[in-house]
Amino acid sequence: MRRVLDANDIMAAQNRKLFQEKNVYVLNMMSSPGSGKTTTLEKTLARIMPEVRSAVVVGDICTTNDADRLARSGAPVVQINTDEFGGDCHLSAHVIEKALDGIKLDDIDLLIVENIGNLVCPAEFDIGEDCRVVVLSVTEGEDKPAKYPLMFRECHATLLNKIDLLPYLDYDREDALKTIQLVHPGMPVFEVSAKTEEGFDSWIEWLMHKVKKKLASN
Amino acid sequence: MRRVLDANDIMAAQNRKLFQEKNVYVLNMMSSPGSGKTTTLEKTLARIMPEVRSAVVVGDICTTNDADRLARSGAPVVQINTDEFGGDCHLSAHVIEKALDGIKLDDIDLLIVENIGNLVCPAEFDIGEDCRVVVLSVTEGEDKPAKYPLMFRECHATLLNKIDLLPYLDYDREDALKTIQLVHPGMPVFEVSAKTEEGFDSWIEWLMHKVKKKLASN
Repeated sequence: MRRVLDANDIMAAQNRKLFQEKNVYVLNMMSSPGSGKTTTLEKTLARIMPEVRSAVVVGDICTTNDADRLARSGAPVVQINTDEFGGDCHLSAHVIEKALDGIKLDDIDLLIVENIGNLVCPAEFDIGEDCRVVVLSVTEGEDKPAKYPLMFRECHATLLNKIDLLPYLDYDREDALKTIQLVHPGMPVFEVSAKTEEGFDSWIEWLMHKVKKKLASN
Repeated sequence: MRRVLDANDIMAAQNRKLFQEKNVYVLNMMSSPGSGKTTTLEKTLARIMPEVRSAVVVGDICTTNDADRLARSGAPVVQINTDEFGGDCHLSAHVIEKALDGIKLDDIDLLIVENIGNLVCPAEFDIGEDCRVVVLSVTEGEDKPAKYPLMFRECHATLLNKIDLLPYLDYDREDALKTIQLVHPGMPVFEVSAKTEEGFDSWIEWLMHKVKKKLASN
């Protein structure tokens, strides 16, 4: 396992160098299955394109469902199916490097990677990204940051999604927010509904600030 | 990876032999984070105990939240925290064998293993169980069986949970059921709400039939 992670880190550093040279900001989006990554990305792309020229790499073990949905945004989309790689439970830096064959980095400002739905393993693998965001659905309960601490420590922000369902859940919002801060003090949390786009203004503003800061510094 | 799985299979066979000798039925319950495994088990234990003498092994990377909740049932509960084993994303046969130190197999009929919340990796690891059940929350969307096919092929039944939320979701129930049948033809699906216990009669009946069949055959 140690050797696998070392090899991954070397490739991640190469990816990061390439992204720097090409002046592309890279966002790695992670979550449990079904927490709403794809809908979040659909709505995000609709708001930032074409001003921010974006492309997406989407990972799943099987199916092209998510790529089909995201392609409607007009962004170039590369679907990775890890069943070609033994059904891997995460995207590695090597897999991202291969996926880049399908994307013209010179033509984009932002590359979004929608990782495999898994709240454990993807957090262990650097892919050369600038920023990591975890999407957590309120339907998953308040205690997930405490139970999956590596993911919440490694990420730069939490999108607390599906808040449109709060009236129908026994959900202790204060407890959830407190738990996130215990695991990762100071972490920005955006309470959103990807369905209704409630809360999206702050999330988009935060992301755009980061993207533009990198693009301006190059 | 191959060697890890081979070593796991050898230990799983030893576990299975022990469970057979002790006449204990073993259920391995798996799912994404937050799909409702613990609530399902709380409600299940309340219905089957003390007639069926039950114990639980519950796996999490961190925290004892689930063990604390399940202990209120009166069943013996052993919490495994895999952060002691490098933050493992699944329960292996070796980890189960160690957990058995805390359980008197002579005194129980049913051992339930609540696996780590992860729809990918736990499906790859036999722990010596008699039966595998996957809990899938309707909030996770219709397409998860197609995206995580190994889990749905390896399991003997699906608990389609949180149906109390269906009025508030854009959820195509027919599509979800069709997708499960495409991935695992003939798989029993119990549409339940662990919150309201809707649909629990059929699930409990199915489980009890399996448990009693094994106990009677020994």
